[in-house]
Amino acid sequence: MKRVLAIYFVVTSVFVVGICITLYLGRGMFVAAPVAVHIPSAGASVWSVLWQNFHDPLARLLVQFIVIIVATRAVGAAFSHFGQPAVIGEMTAGVLLGPSLLGWLSPGSFTFIFPKESLGILQLFSQIGVCLFMFVVGLELDVSNLRRRARTAIVVSHSSIMVPYLLGVILALVLYRSFAIPGTPFVSFALFMGIAMSITAFPVLVRILADRGLARTPLGATATTCAAVGDATAWVILAFVVAIARATGLISTLLNLGLLVAFVAVMLFVARPVLSRFLTVERMQGHRALGLIAGVLVFMTASALVTQAIGIHALFGAFLAGVVMPRDKDFYNYLAVRLENFSTVFLLPLFFAFSGLRTQVNMLNDSASWLAVAGIVAVAITGKVLGSTVPARLTGMSWHESFQLGALMNTRGLVELIALNIGYDLGILSPRIFSMLVLMALVTTFMTGPLLGLMNWTQRRGAGLAAAAS
Amino acid sequence: MKRVLAIYFVVTSVFVVGICITLYLGRGMFVAAPVAVHIPSAGASVWSVLWQNFHDPLARLLVQFIVIIVATRAVGAAFSHFGQPAVIGEMTAGVLLGPSLLGWLSPGSFTFIFPKESLGILQLFSQIGVCLFMFVVGLELDVSNLRRRARTAIVVSHSSIMVPYLLGVILALVLYRSFAIPGTPFVSFALFMGIAMSITAFPVLVRILADRGLARTPLGATATTCAAVGDATAWVILAFVVAIARATGLISTLLNLGLLVAFVAVMLFVARPVLSRFLTVERMQGHRALGLIAGVLVFMTASALVTQAIGIHALFGAFLAGVVMPRDKDFYNYLAVRLENFSTVFLLPLFFAFSGLRTQVNMLNDSASWLAVAGIVAVAITGKVLGSTVPARLTGMSWHESFQLGALMNTRGLVELIALNIGYDLGILSPRIFSMLVLMALVTTFMTGPLLGLMNWTQRRGAGLAAAAS
Repeated sequence: MKRVLAIYFVVTSVFVVGICITLYLGRGMFVAAPVAVHIPSAGASVWSVLWQNFHDPLARLLVQFIVIIVATRAVGAAFSHFGQPAVIGEMTAGVLLGPSLLGWLSPGSFTFIFPKESLGILQLFSQIGVCLFMFVVGLELDVSNLRRRARTAIVVSHSSIMVPYLLGVILALVLYRSFAIPGTPFVSFALFMGIAMSITAFPVLVRILADRGLARTPLGATATTCAAVGDATAWVILAFVVAIARATGLISTLLNLGLLVAFVAVMLFVARPVLSRFLTVERMQGHRALGLIAGVLVFMTASALVTQAIGIHALFGAFLAGVVMPRDKDFYNYLAVRLENFSTVFLLPLFFAFSGLRTQVNMLNDSASWLAVAGIVAVAITGKVLGSTVPARLTGMSWHESFQLGALMNTRGLVELIALNIGYDLGILSPRIFSMLVLMALVTTFMTGPLLGLMNWTQRRGAGLAAAAS
Repeated sequence: MKRVLAIYFVVTSVFVVGICITLYLGRGMFVAAPVAVHIPSAGASVWSVLWQNFHDPLARLLVQFIVIIVATRAVGAAFSHFGQPAVIGEMTAGVLLGPSLLGWLSPGSFTFIFPKESLGILQLFSQIGVCLFMFVVGLELDVSNLRRRARTAIVVSHSSIMVPYLLGVILALVLYRSFAIPGTPFVSFALFMGIAMSITAFPVLVRILADRGLARTPLGATATTCAAVGDATAWVILAFVVAIARATGLISTLLNLGLLVAFVAVMLFVARPVLSRFLTVERMQGHRALGLIAGVLVFMTASALVTQAIGIHALFGAFLAGVVMPRDKDFYNYLAVRLENFSTVFLLPLFFAFSGLRTQVNMLNDSASWLAVAGIVAVAITGKVLGSTVPARLTGMSWHESFQLGALMNTRGLVELIALNIGYDLGILSPRIFSMLVLMALVTTFMTGPLLGLMNWTQRRGAGLAAAAS
């Protein structure tokens, strides 16, 4: 023990003395910079340097992460507490962090947290997050349920898309002159308004069903299947609309559509069978696991790149990559636990915040705008509820169940937000109409829970009255 | 069935006819843009538009992801195949993607994949990746082993830092005039050269021990403990060096150091006990799991932000956040599976590539530079091997084991790369000296395996000769 201490003492002494001597020897050496380096004055420097440190891009990004994650979690938890799905709270938190609330209440802290030059970076992080999210959504897409309930599901879900789509296109006739970005062709605007009306948020719907204990009822199963079919259909339509809107002429439209169809065909008929042979849970064990995860991520990224390059959005590719992954429960669990948590908790909130930054409710400062909002909300609800309730009743469900299905399909949620951001990126939706549609998405998603509650209450009341009368 | 088909037919017909009529009605509407929108000529447009799509920031980032992940995986696999740890291959892949090989062979594709304006974004992604990685390293830091082997471990690891550190500082006397960035004080440069010489890569060392089946031998346990102590010590020294280097005067130095000490104290003595009471695996179950993961990520981000703001690098905070997390095996597994894979597979390769982009081997175009490289490598190896072998022998290990320990501690790997990047970011290391030190890190990491093999061979040969002689 003494010996060890002695060694330690000798080494440390030599070290300290050696360092001191060397630094002393080198004290005179100084290669001056060709231009004078700015040295802040001694008094103010200390705190101003600390303050300055907050302005480098990494610190800025970390500040944004903290603010965004805390805000989405907090508002999400508050909404859960009042019986709403947390995702509505997270979407709302994004809007509150944007110019609509934070930027209005405290412009100083808003421009400190979200300065213009940082938005490009935040957008890229949020886009990567949405791509991962869409990949997991694609992984989860379960078509096995579809075969059992194909008839009702296809009719109801297609009609629940077509009715609001048509109403949205007609509404575009009214809104185009006042609200479209000058230079946008009417066709693009109208087709996009249709999409905006006809989306149903599959993930939110599943969450609502689970919260209300409806997931395993016949209504729940039908609603889930309808929403899944609707989701897939809506993405296909959206991809086509984007391909048309981005094209500069007939040839280019046909080329975009042709490339899209060819890519989807390759993914479904070439990539899917190959992948299901290669990617098995057994291969995921041991030292090759990381390599396979890397392979899956590269596949997803490459697919996203292809769709981005052919002029559709990257997230279609990510979604499609998820769809063609093997439908294996173990495989899904293996991948989901490794990708879903990080993307849901860390990256998706960035998307909510980024959408919120684009939403400028304070732009809606005249009665015409608010009239337009009211019209949009009314058309969205009418189209979706009518378009699902009536065919559901006609294909044999009870009126009560049909109405409940209509209310459920009216949930727009996160998926609507993704579609709206694509429209904004393409320059089809102006900031004003974007803000209106975000409000519509919030209202329709928010009302689903209360609407279902109201229906159950009226049914029970009706049953009670009937019992009293008999 | 007929009825369902009829409904479907009616809805679809109304939809198609309605859309057509509306688009027809709107055909005349067009709000022209105030400035003419650029419409590319019909012939060239189609392919040039597709090509143009590759140049938006998202597509660029996706291309970079694909190239980087595929390259690091491929070179890593090749190195594993030849018995080297994959991480050396991944580091090498980064250098090969940079100006040293790709940029030299094919400047066109290099500037296409890594244009200057995209580097800031790549850097942010890689920094977030390193922060996550350092958090997991902190999580893994196991001091329970230390108590059993404290004596040898502390003496050997501290001496294995101090000897190369001193040699590095002395080397700085020689290199300062020719290679330091003008305007850098000698003290900063010398202290940083010391750090660069004295780092041991704990993660790589653990991997090498596991690969050679040495992990559970006494030598393996001593080496692991030494490296863990050395790792923690090196980070503390590095934090101090950075605090000194970034300061603009005596007051500012003392303030930086004071803030650093205060923050570490708060983390160890306030945050750690609180966290170990709150974060248990039981709480991680069910619907609150996501909230707790979010909490952990926010804690990590906030800690990174604090160290970034007080002028040390963000990754110290991330590392420290990992260190103060509860030392619970289940908790570690729960977090690691959710964070480690994504960061190792997706984000860490970005860091290797980013470091490689900064490494310009072609800058070393004169004999003085290569002489300096040789000097740096010689000093690094001599300092590390002497500094570990001699005290190990003196504290009671055999010569053979002491040499093996020396060879193991000479592994610099990824940790060295992280430290060098900090020096580059601070403006202390010029691109030339950075490239030299990266080469040194590659050489010392690469030689560990062969050196151990050589030692075993000479020992067996010696044993064989001794057996033949007796």
